[in-house]
Amino acid sequence: MILFQNEHFYIETEPHTLPWLKIFTQKPYRELTDIPPKLRNQMWELYYGVEEEMRNYFQPDKINMASFANILPRVHIHVIARFKDDAYFPNPVWGEKLREEKQISKDFNLFYEKIAEKFKDIQ
Amino acid sequence: MILFQNEHFYIETEPHTLPWLKIFTQKPYRELTDIPPKLRNQMWELYYGVEEEMRNYFQPDKINMASFANILPRVHIHVIARFKDDAYFPNPVWGEKLREEKQISKDFNLFYEKIAEKFKDIQ
Repeated sequence: MILFQNEHFYIETEPHTLPWLKIFTQKPYRELTDIPPKLRNQMWELYYGVEEEMRNYFQPDKINMASFANILPRVHIHVIARFKDDAYFPNPVWGEKLREEKQISKDFNLFYEKIAEKFKDIQ
Repeated sequence: MILFQNEHFYIETEPHTLPWLKIFTQKPYRELTDIPPKLRNQMWELYYGVEEEMRNYFQPDKINMASFANILPRVHIHVIARFKDDAYFPNPVWGEKLREEKQISKDFNLFYEKIAEKFKDIQ
């Protein structure tokens, strides 16, 4: 689901038991250093906004951030809220699963609405 | 091994068969949004410099970048050069190992020298 988009970026949900958003550039770039400097800065501003909202809403134990795109080399930033009792903690979510996945009690849709609201006026 | 440091940051090697550096702030911050905005920007400039040098020197198939710090919550940025035939590709290096690790033919020490040289005049 796309929560926000403008001329340069879009923010998408990753379906998962953990809060997980992905920030994409509209134009595909192979690596971060291929993104024009002005857009890089705008992308980090989006990232900080997402991280801030995720921290406020979910009160996670840690935020995880990553850019891999090994299969399809197209830069996007993963933003994931982590909890000490989540299925992979303290491993990254790409690492070994250590316990059963469980639902978080907070409403993900309300969080998605907050993200959409937060960014709606960004050009 | 510390390749560079100034008042605000240091760049450290991660011993691994893959080229892998870590960028730390001197002062510990829990999350990226806890870092003062001016320092965040300086940190990304360091990151872009490391990524650029890693791409030039190793000609990797992809750069992987991540910030986890789940065990000890202290922001640092991983920068890793990835190759299609490396032990984990296309998984992140925190994921399942798919083949044997092997040495890269390029001299890591020469790369480390290039990084040290590149950043030596940064205040």
